Amino acid sequence: MNSLPAAAAGAAPDGAGLDSGAVSDKGDTPTIPVIGGTGALGSGLAKRWAQGGAKVVIGSRDAGRAQEAAEKIAAETGGDVTGMTNEDAARAAEVVFLTVPFRNQSEYMTNLKDSLSAGQILVDCSVPLAAAISGKATRTIGVWQGSAAQQAQEMAPEGVTVVSALHTVSAPGLADLESELGEDVPICGDRKADKAKVAGLIARIDGLRPVNAGALETSRIVEQLTPLLISINIRYKTHAGIRFTGLPEGDPFS
Amino acid sequence: MNSLPAAAAGAAPDGAGLDSGAVSDKGDTPTIPVIGGTGALGSGLAKRWAQGGAKVVIGSRDAGRAQEAAEKIAAETGGDVTGMTNEDAARAAEVVFLTVPFRNQSEYMTNLKDSLSAGQILVDCSVPLAAAISGKATRTIGVWQGSAAQQAQEMAPEGVTVVSALHTVSAPGLADLESELGEDVPICGDRKADKAKVAGLIARIDGLRPVNAGALETSRIVEQLTPLLISINIRYKTHAGIRFTGLPEGDPFS
Repeated sequence: MNSLPAAAAGAAPDGAGLDSGAVSDKGDTPTIPVIGGTGALGSGLAKRWAQGGAKVVIGSRDAGRAQEAAEKIAAETGGDVTGMTNEDAARAAEVVFLTVPFRNQSEYMTNLKDSLSAGQILVDCSVPLAAAISGKATRTIGVWQGSAAQQAQEMAPEGVTVVSALHTVSAPGLADLESELGEDVPICGDRKADKAKVAGLIARIDGLRPVNAGALETSRIVEQLTPLLISINIRYKTHAGIRFTGLPEGDPFS
Repeated sequence: MNSLPAAAAGAAPDGAGLDSGAVSDKGDTPTIPVIGGTGALGSGLAKRWAQGGAKVVIGSRDAGRAQEAAEKIAAETGGDVTGMTNEDAARAAEVVFLTVPFRNQSEYMTNLKDSLSAGQILVDCSVPLAAAISGKATRTIGVWQGSAAQQAQEMAPEGVTVVSALHTVSAPGLADLESELGEDVPICGDRKADKAKVAGLIARIDGLRPVNAGALETSRIVEQLTPLLISINIRYKTHAGIRFTGLPEGDPFS
């Protein structure tokens, strides 16, 4: 971890969260900031991580709304959840999850410019569904950079690396703590060590298996899995997920 | 089945294959023409279908090579396999599988113009990997029509409908009859009845579950699964396949 502003330490709820993103051992207690954490995907993830014992930081445009959401999730899970502005949340740990819809991604990246700093990893979860421009959710729009993740990388401050993940996990499935998960999470990024940190955090959620899907450019493909699953969901009236068959045991991130 | 040329009946090895593509019951004996059936994917499929009791027709540019390949597969599987030119094979049943690499698809579609006729279903299995133009197999090239399958549809004779499938099944896995399969086969097409016929034939191969993935345009996404799996294969040194989680029991094609 390098060159985090001094404010970061203060923003971490326990003042010890800075390196915690690197922790993959479930016995540790990482701090996990979720930008847009009051949204469907963000709050689902926050619930699962809180339930699993992580310290979750909900970010929202409005600190009051974030705190309200945090209290609710803390009550439901018995976990350690705090709420603050997106900007403060972005300083709370090394690995930061951006869980907003694609139509808001660019605006959030602009707003986070002064909060993110070199050495941090931003996990983008957005998918350029055509729904963003009133089109079908079974189609995507072309992103000049190749993918939503590559757009985020282009907009990220110098030294902040983007990893993409969590495109295919159903938000309602995450939010319903009674629902048993059992699916893979393809992760794209250009540095194995970064993906390993993100994988460690995702693996804290029971039933999610992180899969090393390739370089960040492969997010072009992985982001397309979401409209594919939506197309399948329409036909099967379900919330489908993805599994890769034939993967050997062992950690492909190390 | 309508307007098949008279030659079609003659081309079917047992003169009874014309409607067999419509059969999904494993107890029946469909005739399955595999265009490009001497290639890696085609011969793997041919083996599996022959082993499962279907009458397989191997098509090749050269009838002699097709017959040779057919004899080999017949010997290995004890099945009913014949070989003929691609043009003759294309007349052998209602549902025809085109298993050539994308770089050859357009040429084959041109050559098959007079052999395919209204009422037939052409199953395209090709993937526009950038490898076709000496690029990476983890990338694709843009196809003006949207996908390889949509290009095939544009080139198909009037009344021939294209369905796309079998992009993600490993050819070596198919060819090795000792290898147990256990994965899904996303199928794209604009008519449910067509997809049902194709699904019935695919389901004859033990361990393959046909999945109704959507309209033909969804093949844009499904074709991208191949480079994604290649990217994963590189990292895991395996032959990965795809599974969709959360699908209910029951036939989504009926």
